[in-house]
Amino acid sequence: MNMTDLLAKIRKQQPLIHNITNVVVTNFTANGLYALGASPVMANAKEEAGEMASIANAVVLNIGTLTKEQVESMISAGKAANEAGVPVVFDPVGVGATPFRTKSAQAILEQVNVSAIRGNAGELANLAGVSVEVKGVDSSGEFDMDELVSLAYKKLQVPLAITGPLDYIIDGTRKAVISNGHPLLTKVTGAGCLLSSIVGAFLAVEKDTFKAMTQAVYCYGVAAEEAAGKAHLPGDFQIELLNQLYAVTDELVAEKAKVVFENLGSERD
Amino acid sequence: MNMTDLLAKIRKQQPLIHNITNVVVTNFTANGLYALGASPVMANAKEEAGEMASIANAVVLNIGTLTKEQVESMISAGKAANEAGVPVVFDPVGVGATPFRTKSAQAILEQVNVSAIRGNAGELANLAGVSVEVKGVDSSGEFDMDELVSLAYKKLQVPLAITGPLDYIIDGTRKAVISNGHPLLTKVTGAGCLLSSIVGAFLAVEKDTFKAMTQAVYCYGVAAEEAAGKAHLPGDFQIELLNQLYAVTDELVAEKAKVVFENLGSERD
Amino acid sequence: MNMTDLLAKIRKQQPLIHNITNVVVTNFTANGLYALGASPVMANAKEEAGEMASIANAVVLNIGTLTKEQVESMISAGKAANEAGVPVVFDPVGVGATPFRTKSAQAILEQVNVSAIRGNAGELANLAGVSVEVKGVDSSGEFDMDELVSLAYKKLQVPLAITGPLDYIIDGTRKAVISNGHPLLTKVTGAGCLLSSIVGAFLAVEKDTFKAMTQAVYCYGVAAEEAAGKAHLPGDFQIELLNQLYAVTDELVAEKAKVVFENLGSERD
Repeated sequence: MNMTDLLAKIRKQQPLIHNITNVVVTNFTANGLYALGASPVMANAKEEAGEMASIANAVVLNIGTLTKEQVESMISAGKAANEAGVPVVFDPVGVGATPFRTKSAQAILEQVNVSAIRGNAGELANLAGVSVEVKGVDSSGEFDMDELVSLAYKKLQVPLAITGPLDYIIDGTRKAVISNGHPLLTKVTGAGCLLSSIVGAFLAVEKDTFKAMTQAVYCYGVAAEEAAGKAHLPGDFQIELLNQLYAVTDELVAEKAKVVFENLGSERD
Repeated sequence: MNMTDLLAKIRKQQPLIHNITNVVVTNFTANGLYALGASPVMANAKEEAGEMASIANAVVLNIGTLTKEQVESMISAGKAANEAGVPVVFDPVGVGATPFRTKSAQAILEQVNVSAIRGNAGELANLAGVSVEVKGVDSSGEFDMDELVSLAYKKLQVPLAITGPLDYIIDGTRKAVISNGHPLLTKVTGAGCLLSSIVGAFLAVEKDTFKAMTQAVYCYGVAAEEAAGKAHLPGDFQIELLNQLYAVTDELVAEKAKVVFENLGSERD
Repeated sequence: MNMTDLLAKIRKQQPLIHNITNVVVTNFTANGLYALGASPVMANAKEEAGEMASIANAVVLNIGTLTKEQVESMISAGKAANEAGVPVVFDPVGVGATPFRTKSAQAILEQVNVSAIRGNAGELANLAGVSVEVKGVDSSGEFDMDELVSLAYKKLQVPLAITGPLDYIIDGTRKAVISNGHPLLTKVTGAGCLLSSIVGAFLAVEKDTFKAMTQAVYCYGVAAEEAAGKAHLPGDFQIELLNQLYAVTDELVAEKAKVVFENLGSERD
């Protein structure tokens, strides 16, 4: 399987990515998708969210600044995407922080068949309702990631990208651990949200969800590394990341990707 | 008629431009208006949209992420602007993509006397309900622009700026074709939306709508060219465009503007 | 009292700052707080605004693009913060421009015990309902700032930061006048809004409101001066300000802060 071929496809097909996302990251998400070569659209109103989803090539649902009305639009868009065979990415931002966020995330998962979920370790632990041993006293928490990834997939039964210092991609039979990326990503708001939308762009051009997610995550990580090589402060880095999402190629990614694959066999089925 | 005199007026008068616009471009629009020398304000609530419009020097209505409530606010702002003699620019983002968008655009045009409309060829064709021969097989469509511009004006009877690789300005008796600008504008979200708000700033200081729109469009195009001379990647370009909107002068525009005027005589009346 | 010690505390404690703010500045505010070393969160829905406030280290309420629903969320968040002992900063953007804005600001002040208010001279004059002699004919108005600051505090009885060419901090017994900052701040949207959120970050690590506000304002001013030393155009300045909020240290601020303190004694009680 060619694991560095999808950037070229995105640039050729310019897939339409419909984002129902939070008000903090709309601009950065749209600019990141344009830079990558995709075509962003955002339509929150429940009167049109479903129709827009059905003409899109992927739908991304992000609950960062959810409202009751927006969750209704997300469910409407998700159902329409399901009917039209359009892949749906779910980003459960901040799930667990409030009951409203948790209930809304559950409602979305109950009513929409999501193709993939991307979040950080804490969000995925909360979403899956798994309790994982915390190693060390680091205030940010340090999960046993192998255990978390395995339990979260077992519970959610959806391909997952759990991102952090290391990124984990898992589906029923395969796992990838990616060590690209850069700490400056944590100093820019919406870096994770943009990655979720970029996962959408990769899913739009590739039916194998595991392959699409894995490539999305290390392409993004390589772009971030290139950006951090040129920009050392967070304002500059935010702009340089957009530059590098435009400049990065499958060839560069093939050279720079740091990924370990694991075959999980039938034990995960 | 002096066709490069309005930037100086904007910087002197600092007109208040009230934008009811989409959540993707609010920040970029406000920063672009500040950079140009205007004063942006955004007020979406129907409780105040009308009052804010009546104290503004121009109102810009943009349906990029419309909601039912926001359309009500747009109509309220538009009516108040009409009563107060404040010019209104309409940007029908994505009209035609969903019935909700099309109906909302029609409702705005029925209830508000808009001074000018700015959009791309597809949006204007949809808004005017004209069907235009598509030349070539380019997936982005290649309209017979002269026919489209003419038919759209005939139907809408409002001065139009139809922007793209070439920009067309038309009113009942005059047409301008502008070839300034740069392809990097298509890699930055909100480049068209910002132009609509900048058209508002020019209308705020000039009663001749055709003159104001034409100057707005080639000033913007010249600023984009200057930016593209310094910034070759989309992140950098987005920031450099703001720099150049601040730095551009009427003198530079007089030197760089590429425009052809056509007198349509009485045949368009 | 050590007047340059709080940046280090913010970077160590990474306080969670809950912002209910306007749609124009959400991204810039979040990036500014991250750059400074704080952790931003935004949650507008009334279903969760209160809970998010009670787990935050400070709450910032900003009415820049208020809606009826958002004001309800602000009041809910403010009350929850009050119960939990979390400091609340209020930024009355554009108060006085419309009756809706004025009534909403009054409703917030009646129902929430705000710890601090930051705004410009016109906003504070409107909020306090004081009429102040305007000196000179400058169209932007030139208030007798000493009188305005004194009257506004007397009326509002809340520590105030009134910012402009000079910044004034006042509580019942102390006043500070700060002359850091740079005119390019007026060319970037959300520069004042971000300062309000940064005041929140300082309040999150320091119980003495006057001390926290004063340090916040001159830290921000020093960062702006550093940025203006590197970036002379508004696009660049916006990004460089984020860089410098990340780079600025208590040591640099101790060297560069330009502040005059005045003891108001018991006469202001």
